Amino acid sequence: MSVQAVLDWLDAHESESIERLKDWLRIPSVSADPEYQPHMIRAAEWAAGQLRAAGLKAEIVPADPKWGARPGHPMVLATSEGAANYRGPHVLFYGHYDVQPVDPIELWERDPFDPAIAPATPNGPGERIVARGAVDDKGQVATFLEALRAWKEAGGTTAGGVKFTVLLEGEEECGSETIEKYLHAAKDRLGACDVCLISDTGMLGRGRPAITYGLRGMAYTEIVLHAADRDLHSGLWGGKTPNPIGELAKVLAQLWDVDRRVTIPGFYDDVRELAPVEREAWAKLGIDPAAMLAKIGLPPEASVGEAGYTFTEREWARPTAEINGIYGGYAGPGAKTVIPAKAGAKVSFRLVADQVPSKIIKQFFKWLGERTPAGCRWETIEHSQGWPATVATDSPHLAAARRAMKAASGVDPVLIKTGGSIPIAGSFKSELGLDTIFMGFGLDDDRIHSPNEKFELDCFRLGARSHALFIHELANAK
Amino acid sequence: MSVQAVLDWLDAHESESIERLKDWLRIPSVSADPEYQPHMIRAAEWAAGQLRAAGLKAEIVPADPKWGARPGHPMVLATSEGAANYRGPHVLFYGHYDVQPVDPIELWERDPFDPAIAPATPNGPGERIVARGAVDDKGQVATFLEALRAWKEAGGTTAGGVKFTVLLEGEEECGSETIEKYLHAAKDRLGACDVCLISDTGMLGRGRPAITYGLRGMAYTEIVLHAADRDLHSGLWGGKTPNPIGELAKVLAQLWDVDRRVTIPGFYDDVRELAPVEREAWAKLGIDPAAMLAKIGLPPEASVGEAGYTFTEREWARPTAEINGIYGGYAGPGAKTVIPAKAGAKVSFRLVADQVPSKIIKQFFKWLGERTPAGCRWETIEHSQGWPATVATDSPHLAAARRAMKAASGVDPVLIKTGGSIPIAGSFKSELGLDTIFMGFGLDDDRIHSPNEKFELDCFRLGARSHALFIHELANAK
Repeated sequence: MSVQAVLDWLDAHESESIERLKDWLRIPSVSADPEYQPHMIRAAEWAAGQLRAAGLKAEIVPADPKWGARPGHPMVLATSEGAANYRGPHVLFYGHYDVQPVDPIELWERDPFDPAIAPATPNGPGERIVARGAVDDKGQVATFLEALRAWKEAGGTTAGGVKFTVLLEGEEECGSETIEKYLHAAKDRLGACDVCLISDTGMLGRGRPAITYGLRGMAYTEIVLHAADRDLHSGLWGGKTPNPIGELAKVLAQLWDVDRRVTIPGFYDDVRELAPVEREAWAKLGIDPAAMLAKIGLPPEASVGEAGYTFTEREWARPTAEINGIYGGYAGPGAKTVIPAKAGAKVSFRLVADQVPSKIIKQFFKWLGERTPAGCRWETIEHSQGWPATVATDSPHLAAARRAMKAASGVDPVLIKTGGSIPIAGSFKSELGLDTIFMGFGLDDDRIHSPNEKFELDCFRLGARSHALFIHELANAK
Repeated sequence: MSVQAVLDWLDAHESESIERLKDWLRIPSVSADPEYQPHMIRAAEWAAGQLRAAGLKAEIVPADPKWGARPGHPMVLATSEGAANYRGPHVLFYGHYDVQPVDPIELWERDPFDPAIAPATPNGPGERIVARGAVDDKGQVATFLEALRAWKEAGGTTAGGVKFTVLLEGEEECGSETIEKYLHAAKDRLGACDVCLISDTGMLGRGRPAITYGLRGMAYTEIVLHAADRDLHSGLWGGKTPNPIGELAKVLAQLWDVDRRVTIPGFYDDVRELAPVEREAWAKLGIDPAAMLAKIGLPPEASVGEAGYTFTEREWARPTAEINGIYGGYAGPGAKTVIPAKAGAKVSFRLVADQVPSKIIKQFFKWLGERTPAGCRWETIEHSQGWPATVATDSPHLAAARRAMKAASGVDPVLIKTGGSIPIAGSFKSELGLDTIFMGFGLDDDRIHSPNEKFELDCFRLGARSHALFIHELANAK
């Protein structure tokens, strides 16, 4: 069966596809508010129904009460294992059916759970769908569901013969506690997958399709330097005892060398170096540092970072140490002459493949211990860890996704990364060893998490076509 | 007339002296609470009456409404100018008649304004007087008032023929706003004095009389480093824009060199070097750094400070830079991945003679400006300034005070300094050019500002005798 038939089916049935998405958007699956619990179950069951209609086996996996401090929301687990003659890799598709709360409700132009089609003004031709969850993430998941349905209806085989495991969670907007525990518990079962696919990111702009193939990990710590057992008067003690604020500043200042490289021994040991092909491709993206800095009120000379790397490379491909908070002594209005008993800082590291968060934290705490100021002691706290996740540039799956998006849009998609961290992708890497390909169709102005969230129908269409073509590429992979 | 007659008079009339002090202590002159306003006036008038009884001309100087944000309390101004044949220097005696609030009232063993004589247990023989203000500062001022009275009664001349200006304020415990303004307004009149005398400090211990002849000044600033015009996500911006916390830490860490000397150019230019005689004397005081550090939970190796100076010298004779507070970013529980728009610190300098606070602040801000991190800008705030005040070790007045206390106690008093700042003494220096001699009779366990404040009668006696003898010494000075 030809992929063209599948694409034709999508074209011919687009109105029905949109209507199906609208049905899902009418279910107010706000995960953060316990009052919406019944809607969560309905939203999960709706998705399970769609997956079954596309020929997959689907079940609802309830949250184990042991997995979280509060009642969790169910997951949807589906598999195309019923089909014969699997071809290509085994793909784990991840998405989420929960949405953000709607506040401030008074800024919505209409009921956030009464989806409407509106003109795509002022920025583009075409139409858009406006509702909470339109793009994050129901609309994006729907592009995949419609591609599956098209393959079943017009292609004649469930998921085009590709082995899929589909996992949709209902807590992405409120901490993902359940799925994190589930990944650990279901390690053996899910670990058989080859690669992960997520549609929850964006394009580089209108008409600029993009695949995100890497993100940074995170190691977040807090350090507290203790000196005297009480606050001291700076007149009677200043200059003859350690002031933990000054001592902390002196230690923190050593975190970077003059080239703004992190000085912790071993910090860069596991860093995967940038491939020349990546540097070349990124240089062509037309990213304008001065323009980006101007948007946040900074002059061009504020483009500072690790020597030897560009503005974009520093975010996408290099690890960094940041102080996210600092405290100690008196911070109120006016003056108080105190030498405090302690001072602390939140110190986090953004990590890149193949750095391991726990190893970095251990190295950092060792480095700190070697710099303990005289008469002081450190208290160290580990707040969170998330693995970096980067698909290798020569991955055949990445190449397949790229071909699919090009065929779908007529434009070769750019391969981009993000300096942010997506905890679930880090967990797919740390728990299951899976790299993640982010094939996302959102735009910067989609107002995710804000009133009047929307998804352009052009983007919806591109998403469904891309997924249909990606399935085709995967099925024909060696 | 011999000074012995004056001392004999003090001995013979001690019960009356104590009764007079008790009368004063019964007036609840709590300056911080506006409800006590009528008592403030009574307490000031009581002191004026005592000064008149000792032969001085005394007046009440009301607070000028223009001088403060809230209604001020009156000052008492008295002068011995009525006497003929002045001898010796013109001395400005300063004290305060206001007291701290009594809270927590439930911890007082009796009414704080119903003074009582109690045994001086468990620490010593003799008796003590217990009441709010017993030592801080009514009791100490009373030792001077009784010495004046004795000179009038038994010596036959007002103030022993010494030219005194007595200035008592009623706002020492709540900011001294009125007197600070008054000093500026009455500069010409008070500037004719030669030296200032204050009894509001302590001895080195029981039986260890001390004269404090110097204290540190203060320059208190706040600096804020601004970067982007909003808080940034550390994933998207970390490593490619300045993080004001890290940049601030890097600048602050440069405030001291490896010898813990302040690195601001010119910082030490006006510092009066320690005299060998001072170093020798202080070394003999028996101050035990390890014991003092142990009291605040620090090990002996926490004795850190400017190289080349001892524990005591660092506090008493060396200037220092301290960070009294630091803030920026997220300081709540857990983790937040923010790069804040700004970070700030409270930076103060304890100064020694002859450093000038305004000059130090100017040097510091210049130093900061030379270290402005790329893309950032400084906001600088001056919070307060106070001059250091140190009497020269070869001052004849200091020598006279020393002889007087030795004659009064039989023990050569130790000459000490304090690392703290007494703003009014700084103002006597900055406004009037006066050095201050602190002849104080308090003990560490007097519980000033706390429930059950007390003053040992032994100390009261020593105070009155010392003042009587000091007047004698001054009258016979060249």
